[in-house]
Amino acid sequence: MKKVRIGIIGAGRIGKIHADNLLRNPQVEIVAVSDLYAGPELESWAAARNISLVTKDSNELIHHSDIDAIFICSSTDTHVPLISQAARAGKHIFCEKPISMEITQTQSAIDEVNKAGVKLQIGFNRRFDHNFKRVQEVVQSGGIGDPHIIKITSRDPNPPPIEYVKVSGGIFMDMMIHDFDMARFVSGSEVEEVYAVGNVLINPDFAQHCDVDTAVVTLRFANGALGVIDNSRQAVYGYDQRVEVFGNKGSVVVANDHPNTAVISTADSIVSDKPLHFFLERYQAAYVEETHMFIDAILNDKAVPVSGDDGVQAERIALAAKLSSRLGRPVKVSEALELLTQTSLS
Amino acid sequence: MKKVRIGIIGAGRIGKIHADNLLRNPQVEIVAVSDLYAGPELESWAAARNISLVTKDSNELIHHSDIDAIFICSSTDTHVPLISQAARAGKHIFCEKPISMEITQTQSAIDEVNKAGVKLQIGFNRRFDHNFKRVQEVVQSGGIGDPHIIKITSRDPNPPPIEYVKVSGGIFMDMMIHDFDMARFVSGSEVEEVYAVGNVLINPDFAQHCDVDTAVVTLRFANGALGVIDNSRQAVYGYDQRVEVFGNKGSVVVANDHPNTAVISTADSIVSDKPLHFFLERYQAAYVEETHMFIDAILNDKAVPVSGDDGVQAERIALAAKLSSRLGRPVKVSEALELLTQTSLS
Amino acid sequence: MKKVRIGIIGAGRIGKIHADNLLRNPQVEIVAVSDLYAGPELESWAAARNISLVTKDSNELIHHSDIDAIFICSSTDTHVPLISQAARAGKHIFCEKPISMEITQTQSAIDEVNKAGVKLQIGFNRRFDHNFKRVQEVVQSGGIGDPHIIKITSRDPNPPPIEYVKVSGGIFMDMMIHDFDMARFVSGSEVEEVYAVGNVLINPDFAQHCDVDTAVVTLRFANGALGVIDNSRQAVYGYDQRVEVFGNKGSVVVANDHPNTAVISTADSIVSDKPLHFFLERYQAAYVEETHMFIDAILNDKAVPVSGDDGVQAERIALAAKLSSRLGRPVKVSEALELLTQTSLS
Amino acid sequence: MKKVRIGIIGAGRIGKIHADNLLRNPQVEIVAVSDLYAGPELESWAAARNISLVTKDSNELIHHSDIDAIFICSSTDTHVPLISQAARAGKHIFCEKPISMEITQTQSAIDEVNKAGVKLQIGFNRRFDHNFKRVQEVVQSGGIGDPHIIKITSRDPNPPPIEYVKVSGGIFMDMMIHDFDMARFVSGSEVEEVYAVGNVLINPDFAQHCDVDTAVVTLRFANGALGVIDNSRQAVYGYDQRVEVFGNKGSVVVANDHPNTAVISTADSIVSDKPLHFFLERYQAAYVEETHMFIDAILNDKAVPVSGDDGVQAERIALAAKLSSRLGRPVKVSEALELLTQTSLS
Repeated sequence: MKKVRIGIIGAGRIGKIHADNLLRNPQVEIVAVSDLYAGPELESWAAARNISLVTKDSNELIHHSDIDAIFICSSTDTHVPLISQAARAGKHIFCEKPISMEITQTQSAIDEVNKAGVKLQIGFNRRFDHNFKRVQEVVQSGGIGDPHIIKITSRDPNPPPIEYVKVSGGIFMDMMIHDFDMARFVSGSEVEEVYAVGNVLINPDFAQHCDVDTAVVTLRFANGALGVIDNSRQAVYGYDQRVEVFGNKGSVVVANDHPNTAVISTADSIVSDKPLHFFLERYQAAYVEETHMFIDAILNDKAVPVSGDDGVQAERIALAAKLSSRLGRPVKVSEALELLTQTSLS
Repeated sequence: MKKVRIGIIGAGRIGKIHADNLLRNPQVEIVAVSDLYAGPELESWAAARNISLVTKDSNELIHHSDIDAIFICSSTDTHVPLISQAARAGKHIFCEKPISMEITQTQSAIDEVNKAGVKLQIGFNRRFDHNFKRVQEVVQSGGIGDPHIIKITSRDPNPPPIEYVKVSGGIFMDMMIHDFDMARFVSGSEVEEVYAVGNVLINPDFAQHCDVDTAVVTLRFANGALGVIDNSRQAVYGYDQRVEVFGNKGSVVVANDHPNTAVISTADSIVSDKPLHFFLERYQAAYVEETHMFIDAILNDKAVPVSGDDGVQAERIALAAKLSSRLGRPVKVSEALELLTQTSLS
Repeated sequence: MKKVRIGIIGAGRIGKIHADNLLRNPQVEIVAVSDLYAGPELESWAAARNISLVTKDSNELIHHSDIDAIFICSSTDTHVPLISQAARAGKHIFCEKPISMEITQTQSAIDEVNKAGVKLQIGFNRRFDHNFKRVQEVVQSGGIGDPHIIKITSRDPNPPPIEYVKVSGGIFMDMMIHDFDMARFVSGSEVEEVYAVGNVLINPDFAQHCDVDTAVVTLRFANGALGVIDNSRQAVYGYDQRVEVFGNKGSVVVANDHPNTAVISTADSIVSDKPLHFFLERYQAAYVEETHMFIDAILNDKAVPVSGDDGVQAERIALAAKLSSRLGRPVKVSEALELLTQTSLS
Repeated sequence: MKKVRIGIIGAGRIGKIHADNLLRNPQVEIVAVSDLYAGPELESWAAARNISLVTKDSNELIHHSDIDAIFICSSTDTHVPLISQAARAGKHIFCEKPISMEITQTQSAIDEVNKAGVKLQIGFNRRFDHNFKRVQEVVQSGGIGDPHIIKITSRDPNPPPIEYVKVSGGIFMDMMIHDFDMARFVSGSEVEEVYAVGNVLINPDFAQHCDVDTAVVTLRFANGALGVIDNSRQAVYGYDQRVEVFGNKGSVVVANDHPNTAVISTADSIVSDKPLHFFLERYQAAYVEETHMFIDAILNDKAVPVSGDDGVQAERIALAAKLSSRLGRPVKVSEALELLTQTSLS
């Protein structure tokens, strides 16, 4: 049995999750981990997992002869240079989303990957969720006919720290980008036009950083379907992640996952437990699955399930939504880049 | 359009409900109502409904030449003589359940009905409930194959007044009799043996009147199926009425009805409203339907949907359950009557 | 007990439904019914209900001295003149929606009503639905805090006949107008701006009459909330009517009603029955309730639950949506009338 | 960090599952595995997991100085001698259920464990299921008050091979024993009396081995509660595992788990996917949890969550049920052993 030898760049929360998930795969060996703040704690973490090399220098991993593939789990601003370097070094790449905040740079990194002929998978983990995967299967198999209306609800249990908001690129780029990818995934069609409305209803601090905390975006798809995504940064009842696709032969709807099926009936009411808390709980199995499919794509030379172009498309839609929200009018995805040069987006 | 002319004996709650339901049927005319306590209030009630005759004497109705059918809604101890008299007078009869507390008397009333060739329908209203009717249809159409296990849950929101308990015949006769009929209805088979366990867990007063407030009864059906019914006289969350039939090709399960489908999610929990309060709310449409089918049976000379024999069978099972509970052993339905003569059931 | 004496103008399907519902109210007497096509059939229908006067001339009803209130159930183009005449004759008025296709005319009718001091209720029956009423109660009582996102799904089981499409005013005016009213009802706020996207995905005939069969509309509310409504003229699985309101303290969601709660599990799948077929089945109780509240408002001099102004507001939003769809840009409700004079809407 | 060093006796399906689950616990080292049929395949399996010792002789494990705890996953007839030997060797023990078919032998093994002062945990994995654990928490915390009625449904997707039926001890001992343990777990009370009815409805072969394939058992608990368990060896729609506890303050009900929440609505019906297939899928997380708690009990000297006595009690109830089924009468759990000596149970 051949093993894929992995180097992980960025040992924050998501880097560590990927590492532990990869270690459950007998066809994986983690050779090295790099982090700008590597120290005794990370060394102890690595030792417990038989990861022999711990370094502050990502270059050591990229140019390591015993490494086949790189997981890029560092901050978004490092993605483009790291993808380019890894591609030039002939390594396969798994990169967290978004690739970058600037589509031209994102595209340049993809070009490097294509030139090098390595594999690049983007971390749109929700495609691997048991519920959303089932929606996509039903739609793709014709179970609901031609899609007419796509509805996506995506609400976080708590707003991110304001420090994050400053650099995140805003709700369309940091949060709804997942839903733009989901819209493409379940509809099997490209988004052509968006209209975004947003508001600051939870915390006025979002306004200070030119962001909103509540947003509704209308979508027009190439196949004629219409769509809508709603986001809130704070659903007090927990993580709310639902998708509905309606077509000429029926509809498919998925609900939230809950920690158990218990229904408690009392003299007051009928009660059940809140949904699984947040993305780590809800997408636990999806995170495992996405790394397994990346390893499988490498070992068996298959196409990766989420390509670099998928990353580009989601960013283009997010940009169009951001512009639409600022300009107060519908924006075609195809005109977003040009519009951007005429507009000052903070 | 021919009309069925009705006389109602007993103007308590259920008598009045039947009257109002009948008045919604254009093929019905209510000619008279009798009640031992008839007075100004009942006269005013009748006047508002254009019911011309109000009397204390049920005989006036039974022998009224303009009355085709009698609804017997008076107390249980009057059912047998009234059925016999009405039958001999050539009237069709709708009688509330149970026909009586003594099967031999019940049977004698049925014999009179058969001799007279009139129609007799028993008020097992639950057979007309949208949920239970659907269960029966699915089973009868072979949707779940041969029934193997039948489960019936039936719990009241509040215990009856203790005055009622004294004369009701006990939980098996006054409450579970509905479920025994339901067991026959949904299984399409006769009950051959029962084993009843009961306990006093809600109110010690039940013990004083040789009754229980909580009971579980195991059933053996003629077709080999097994069943179980559970009753409680007090479900604090409301009226709980569910049925499940499991067979070799699948299962059919019905849940409670609720006043609305609202699900309210808050920081604490996910909440919905309690089930429809009690039998008047839950079986509102079923009460209408049972009277419509009785009228239809008369006008079009069809078989009634719940026969006198259905009343007898349910009473036989109830008696066997009562004996089983007292004797602490399984009792065959066929041996119940004989056992009764050897046993002193208070 | 005083009775309200009613005259019904227009004896089509909805007129007859209102009549039968009114007849279940002991405080109502139906004195007369008028219909352009009155004939033996209508006379027989009226006779069976003890309605003594049947006429082709609506004026006979409007000027009848024994009539207190008029139900206007005739075609939309007759609503404005009939409201004005009935108001001037001092009759209370129940009018089906929409009042008219032209807001200025609608407003002029409302002005007549206000001048006359009679009551006018508009037939937005869905406000009386058990589910939507519960949503409104929860929102109004603060159960979910301040509303942030309102989502309304409304899909018909089958498209209307093309003859209807020609004169209906289009999907925003004939179908989504109910949802615009619902949006105001459950949010407790006015709609300030809409953006409408539509498409012809079901039947190309809609395009020939400048209409769409699938539409998604984004809403901005005065209180800052955002909303979205989706409509389809053909949901093959049946009538789909759902509402969700999300706020800073939680959410409330209502699902469809089904004819029963049966869940059938087989070797293939887990199956339940489709939702209640269409508006007559789904809103049966709501139709009863709206007439009861109208009668109650008259007898006890209360405010009607759906005012003429509610009718005007829904029409204004529908007009803005229609304009938005044609112009391809967001339209403020306040600018719709002015825009209309600059735009040729077929 | 101290590690618990494990030896696994019996490398069939369940032994291998426990091994892989244990390997996910950083506080565990698996030192050895024994199996009567150990060969190259097992050696290769062990090598991939860094398990250095593979042997046919369980004694090597029991007397291995580097082993702290033994997992007994071999056939039921070996449990008693292995427990006794491991206890005398001072090893902690995890043993699959049932301990044995003969309660006196089971008790003798427990006595050895108690004398040795080692820990013994029985593999009633369902106690660790997210749903059933929640039921127990709600009951124990008083959420539904005093339990009055306990209902357990447990149906397998397919019958076991007939070879298994010959030696399994019958449905009450091989299948319902899990439910007897569940009854004790969720009620917090001991079972005092049972009445069992059974039938052969699926496959006549069961009758040939004096077994049934369908069974319903009524329970009386020491705290006065009543209960019922139903078992079927073949639910064509999949693994059916549900529990309900009803008390004087309310009820708690848990439903099956499904692979996703998708609901597909078409012109025919509303469909969802069948439940998780069988115990490996449904109890995957529960199997992990039970081993983690065993390791935790050893490392931190806590009580094990399922004791040897829990094993004994479940066996006693199973025996009483088997006797009840044969004798056709209720059997007290306390009289089962004595009855057994008077009865010939094949």
